[in-house]
Amino acid sequence: MAVNLPPLHELHPVPGIRLGTTRAQIRKQDRRDLVVIECAPGTKAVAVFTKNRFCAAPVSVAREHLSQTAPRALLINTGYANAGTGSGGMDDARRSCAALAASLDCAPNEVLPFSTGVIGERLPVEKLVAGLPGSIGALSENGWEEAAHGIMTTDTMPKGSSRRVQIEGKTVTLTGIAKGAGMICPNMATLLAFIATDAAVERDVLQQCLSAAADESFNRISVDGDTSTNDSCVLLATGKSGLEIRTAKGVAFDALSGALREVLAELAQAIVRDAEGATKFITIDVVQGASQADCLEVAYTIAHSPLVKTAFFASDPNWGRILAAVGRARIPHLAVDRVSIYLDDMCIARHGARAPEYSEAQGQAIMAKSEISVRVDLGGGTAKARLWTCDLSHDYVTINAEYRT
Amino acid sequence: MAVNLPPLHELHPVPGIRLGTTRAQIRKQDRRDLVVIECAPGTKAVAVFTKNRFCAAPVSVAREHLSQTAPRALLINTGYANAGTGSGGMDDARRSCAALAASLDCAPNEVLPFSTGVIGERLPVEKLVAGLPGSIGALSENGWEEAAHGIMTTDTMPKGSSRRVQIEGKTVTLTGIAKGAGMICPNMATLLAFIATDAAVERDVLQQCLSAAADESFNRISVDGDTSTNDSCVLLATGKSGLEIRTAKGVAFDALSGALREVLAELAQAIVRDAEGATKFITIDVVQGASQADCLEVAYTIAHSPLVKTAFFASDPNWGRILAAVGRARIPHLAVDRVSIYLDDMCIARHGARAPEYSEAQGQAIMAKSEISVRVDLGGGTAKARLWTCDLSHDYVTINAEYRT
Repeated sequence: MAVNLPPLHELHPVPGIRLGTTRAQIRKQDRRDLVVIECAPGTKAVAVFTKNRFCAAPVSVAREHLSQTAPRALLINTGYANAGTGSGGMDDARRSCAALAASLDCAPNEVLPFSTGVIGERLPVEKLVAGLPGSIGALSENGWEEAAHGIMTTDTMPKGSSRRVQIEGKTVTLTGIAKGAGMICPNMATLLAFIATDAAVERDVLQQCLSAAADESFNRISVDGDTSTNDSCVLLATGKSGLEIRTAKGVAFDALSGALREVLAELAQAIVRDAEGATKFITIDVVQGASQADCLEVAYTIAHSPLVKTAFFASDPNWGRILAAVGRARIPHLAVDRVSIYLDDMCIARHGARAPEYSEAQGQAIMAKSEISVRVDLGGGTAKARLWTCDLSHDYVTINAEYRT
Repeated sequence: MAVNLPPLHELHPVPGIRLGTTRAQIRKQDRRDLVVIECAPGTKAVAVFTKNRFCAAPVSVAREHLSQTAPRALLINTGYANAGTGSGGMDDARRSCAALAASLDCAPNEVLPFSTGVIGERLPVEKLVAGLPGSIGALSENGWEEAAHGIMTTDTMPKGSSRRVQIEGKTVTLTGIAKGAGMICPNMATLLAFIATDAAVERDVLQQCLSAAADESFNRISVDGDTSTNDSCVLLATGKSGLEIRTAKGVAFDALSGALREVLAELAQAIVRDAEGATKFITIDVVQGASQADCLEVAYTIAHSPLVKTAFFASDPNWGRILAAVGRARIPHLAVDRVSIYLDDMCIARHGARAPEYSEAQGQAIMAKSEISVRVDLGGGTAKARLWTCDLSHDYVTINAEYRT
């Protein structure tokens, strides 16, 4: 049960991008689990990947291929993450790329592989290869919605976001899809996200655009604090709109960057809304900190506290748990008598203690809502940070206790 | 349901220490919730307290009193933690001390206050004061077991440990009690622990003894990663055995330190065994790290991972989650191809990938046990660290969602 996540609205096709999805029975029967994204020649691609040191084989291979040439296709499977699989897993990822390359008549390193699912088990390459004709046969510019379904694992709803903007008289499209429901505390990107635009953008400019937007979106969400081995976020620019952007400044760059930030923020928030077992969508703002790093540390400490998360699940305004989380955050200085904490617009703690005007009834009314804002004012600087998280429910335990069954 | 935690065995009285427990109805009816521990004149006392910057009022007052004089009594209540209560909470703690001091004919700063329970609500001092005659009337050298019950909150079983050792021809007793079940990731001590000995020990030597032992016990457990605002661990030395220890070296010091380490380790492990909702007791060893700090960081990252904890709850040998936790630990260097991971004596991952000899059936057999050992070999140094933790179950969510109801 996703928290206030609307059904997919229209995902505009991006000229130069075709997507095909099929049921390859890679791990489960009758499930869309294999997606091919084909890019027109000349498409520029940039990506951000997980910072988990045990990065998955497809992450290593995708990073390597991307450093060598521009991709002609992305190959995505669910079921198995192909992580913790050693050199055999690297071979599996390369063989998968080679098989798709043969069908599309391109070089193996023009294919970027992505996997998500169970860690530590080998990828059944034969099943994947057997499924390729199905995905290739389905390739279409209108394939975004099917692909959004095709990359889901424990997600209960597909996630997509799309914008059409007018820049310098040209209509530019930006469309993206993402998946992720658990092991979500991205450090550079989320589990899997694919975004495409038909603007023509220089690669270093495109990378700058993506890194900045990912930092404000995918890198600001947490479900359970566990950073995946497979996080990958790819941005493709086909150039088919005729709009050209050569530098990381100016009106056109700002317009495209703004649209990209919107798309990524929508996708990132969708992932939190559809987090494993989530019943509440929580926005955490930490303001007046000495540095952004301090603000983020405090925000993550709150977001990762099992006691805070179970209190949200129970709609219990047990704000002492938020206070205790702030107090244990690993920041160098904290003037506890300057700290204020708000639930929505209600001050619950001021000068480090319960606010005189706070009433339990008001606290309960706010906690009963499905969207709640927590604001912590550190009272000591000008930096701030925002992140999004969810509660910890019985369903999270059930889903993750039964994940492999 | 505590994990393999035996009922309290005999807690030897410590000459010079009397304990009295009563039902003061501080927050719940008919529950032992008020404990007085009286120390003979001349008793030396040392303590370690929480590092949470939002430390509770009783922690501030106890620290202040301890810096001024030796205590004649400890006053412990459950129900309310008197944390996040501002200057009013400080007054409440001081008034409680003054009331007990008047009854015992000592100075207010000869009383150390301790509280545990709900954060952010005021302590009902009148109820506490009304309960004092009951606790004082019950004072007895044989009061340890009652006191172990009297400090419990969500604990399902009382926790105590006791040793009698012969040192320099003298019989020396060491007895301690502790409580704690949630908000357990002590940083200097656990929620509440009180240990007494009848050795005579200089205060700085006693502090050294306690700090070292706490660092290997209470500071090496985690239930949920949440460091309490009220953690306090007190060690009392009455001197009644006739054994005197003046320096932090020598056979007598080593013997007493050894016994203290045993008592604290038993209490710390008891807290994990009786952690909220725990069904598994997990020992995590990280070896061959570059530093102990690195080893601890890796161990805590595993211990705090909701995905690892739910896998233990499910008896699912989903070791990829352990691998992923190691990979995201905040340590400066990690050679993933040198990392090995063991469940009990079985190697599950070697050189950063699944070990060839690993079988799912063996993994399941180990995970089905109630006591499991995880060993991570970082393959890069000589440092090591051990800590104890538990799984994350439905009962943890239930207990913490319903804590205040």
